[in-house]
Amino acid sequence: MELGPPGGSGPAEPGPRLRGLRGADAAASASSLSRFGAEAGCRAPAVAAVLPAGGSGERMGVPTPKQFCPILERPLISYTLQALERVSWIKDIIVAVTRENMETMKGIIQRYQHKRISLVEAGVTRHRSIFNGLKALAEDQPNCRLSKPEVVIIHDAVRPFVEEDVLLKVVTAAQEHGASGAIRPLVSTVISPSADSCLDHSLERARYRASEMPQAFLFDVIYDAYQQCSDYDLEFGTECLHLALKYSHIKAKLVEGSPDLWKVTYKRDLYAAESIIKERISQKVCVVMDTKEDEEHVGHCLEEMLKTELNHVKVTSGQDLQQIILEQCYNFVCVNVMTSDFEETQRLLNMVEESNLSILYPVVVISVHFLDYESVPLGQKMEKVMQIREFAKEAKKRNILLSGLLIYFPQEEQKLRESLRQGTTIISALIKERNSGLIGQLLVA
Amino acid sequence: MELGPPGGSGPAEPGPRLRGLRGADAAASASSLSRFGAEAGCRAPAVAAVLPAGGSGERMGVPTPKQFCPILERPLISYTLQALERVSWIKDIIVAVTRENMETMKGIIQRYQHKRISLVEAGVTRHRSIFNGLKALAEDQPNCRLSKPEVVIIHDAVRPFVEEDVLLKVVTAAQEHGASGAIRPLVSTVISPSADSCLDHSLERARYRASEMPQAFLFDVIYDAYQQCSDYDLEFGTECLHLALKYSHIKAKLVEGSPDLWKVTYKRDLYAAESIIKERISQKVCVVMDTKEDEEHVGHCLEEMLKTELNHVKVTSGQDLQQIILEQCYNFVCVNVMTSDFEETQRLLNMVEESNLSILYPVVVISVHFLDYESVPLGQKMEKVMQIREFAKEAKKRNILLSGLLIYFPQEEQKLRESLRQGTTIISALIKERNSGLIGQLLVA
Repeated sequence: MELGPPGGSGPAEPGPRLRGLRGADAAASASSLSRFGAEAGCRAPAVAAVLPAGGSGERMGVPTPKQFCPILERPLISYTLQALERVSWIKDIIVAVTRENMETMKGIIQRYQHKRISLVEAGVTRHRSIFNGLKALAEDQPNCRLSKPEVVIIHDAVRPFVEEDVLLKVVTAAQEHGASGAIRPLVSTVISPSADSCLDHSLERARYRASEMPQAFLFDVIYDAYQQCSDYDLEFGTECLHLALKYSHIKAKLVEGSPDLWKVTYKRDLYAAESIIKERISQKVCVVMDTKEDEEHVGHCLEEMLKTELNHVKVTSGQDLQQIILEQCYNFVCVNVMTSDFEETQRLLNMVEESNLSILYPVVVISVHFLDYESVPLGQKMEKVMQIREFAKEAKKRNILLSGLLIYFPQEEQKLRESLRQGTTIISALIKERNSGLIGQLLVA
Repeated sequence: MELGPPGGSGPAEPGPRLRGLRGADAAASASSLSRFGAEAGCRAPAVAAVLPAGGSGERMGVPTPKQFCPILERPLISYTLQALERVSWIKDIIVAVTRENMETMKGIIQRYQHKRISLVEAGVTRHRSIFNGLKALAEDQPNCRLSKPEVVIIHDAVRPFVEEDVLLKVVTAAQEHGASGAIRPLVSTVISPSADSCLDHSLERARYRASEMPQAFLFDVIYDAYQQCSDYDLEFGTECLHLALKYSHIKAKLVEGSPDLWKVTYKRDLYAAESIIKERISQKVCVVMDTKEDEEHVGHCLEEMLKTELNHVKVTSGQDLQQIILEQCYNFVCVNVMTSDFEETQRLLNMVEESNLSILYPVVVISVHFLDYESVPLGQKMEKVMQIREFAKEAKKRNILLSGLLIYFPQEEQKLRESLRQGTTIISALIKERNSGLIGQLLVA
């Protein structure tokens, strides 16, 4: 499934099929395949991916294995699956999980509507888990619906930000050389300690690299290597490229990866991943208005202010809501100028709900109302708009975070701009934090 | 300056002297010195620290050098200085900054009231900056108020979470061996690429370590090494331990560090640092009440609910506010039971302002009011409590984030508990996010 621009910096596109999408989906898929041909200079191979996910996450300091730790209430591994799924030319994704986590994993696949996933049982080490994944792909397995790929990608369940770009690079290099892996510059100097915990020597940083994921292999190369390798390799080895070099005698091509490939290892990495995801889904805001009045109108002024104040955020008018939802906008500002009730907001909520948009990410909806002190007292207006609490409770069940915003609407131009600016600050805070503890609140600018 | 338990997991204690603290300060300092003696089994040496901060932060992808990037509106380097300052036995801290950032750095020292800091000009490489710092400490410098220490710590400006514990370990080991540095296990396998970007060989991960900071040296050992070393070392070297080994022929002792020592390198590391800091300052909540009524009272019920619902958070009664402020509590819930105005909140705001508590971290104050629908209509009550917006604007100037919370107070026990639980969720969200965009709002539970 491939929706957005390939290799873009936006969030990986979702597993669930957004309703009414067939046209866009097919077109994107085709462009992705032709891109493979153009960049690789060769025919597109049959590609599968193996994802070892049997780890216990002991370095995280939390009881849940890190691949199952929630980010915005969704397990980390689901983000990684989503990143692989959006690449249409990966035909099968094999996930190796421990027997005890098998049901959890099935639940995740169902809930987040992941496609093209097969589960195998993890081994006691990473290498054994990968080997189990490869066995499931090998032709000689009985009763197996999977077919042997030409190239297999090996990735980590805890590297959720892998882009199509680098996947394409390692697959292309594997086709040519037999094996390939992503690398990064070292952040710290690497040293070798002596037996008595003193410095023996330090490595010249420029001459070494950190070996990251993804890696890709001609299937036969890596499968042969695993079949030949020793129990010691399977127990204590860490590096698939090393096995391919040692047993299949091929050259492994190294490909420069982006910083985003880093492995979620410590609790701080979960924090970082959450912030990155929040930032990515906050890049677009759609303003929906219940009026098509002239451009001077207060609703349009708010839209202009949002465009000015929210740097790097794409603010669009919600004239074709279906299309905007398809483009995966996770933030909506619903401006109620003509009516003081929630008709427009309710209509928007219904559309978001029906679209499946909120299956993967919490969607922020802010219902904006304007207040003219002179005609209606604040208290009375607030009381009226407080109905939003009930709507918000219902919306929360569908992963939609609804808040109200009451913007003071004075006659004086200068004061109005001040109100709108404050409204923009509040909208920005609600979108940035995406905290479900604050739903149903009526904020005042 | 030493306030909290040494080596604890709370936030590093602030540079500014909290008013009225002389007793606690002196006592803590003494205990820290005796701790040095007990753990090290030797007399406390004279210790200084050198902090190279001349980097341009090119890997971060932002124009501001990473040491000056803001976290909760305060530059990263200020957190690192704070972490060193709280260790009373570090007598001097030398920071090497580029000429163009000299004024910025002076401004940071003044604004956040850092003590014991001297500035030197950074060189064009990290080694040259450190050398400049060491020169300032050497006895033979004219017109220098600094005195030569026995041991010098070298740390990075972009490792803000260094604990007294590991500083003590490296200093003690340096006293004994001449040099010492913190190390961590490798996260990724390290490989050596061949000239044609293929895998040449991979290192056995268990036999290598990442060299981190802090490091410590007998001053003469590292100063001699720098005086002897070549221009090539100064230009291209990265590892101080290596210089000490090469030129002073001493053994450098390696000390296992905590994961918190990691270097803020990429944008994601800034996100992680912000989340860690926010988490640390959210561990204590103080409930201040305007009544000493019986324990059955609604204010006490809220306090109980906070204790039950906020896991890992220490909830204390604000009976001795002075003391609580001294213990660096950054979150206050001000419960107004008897009065509907802001007398109690104003009193609390004044105390926080006078204490200097908010110089280093934004302090969250939530003014809680109760609403009995049957006696006062919601709108009327809300209008009254909306005065909070004006207080909040003033408080923000002093880095205090004030919000209001109106809790519905029904007669029925079950419903009341539901209101209080929702109030707790809101309090928790405000403390966790610490977003200044939401100040002055009146939230309703």
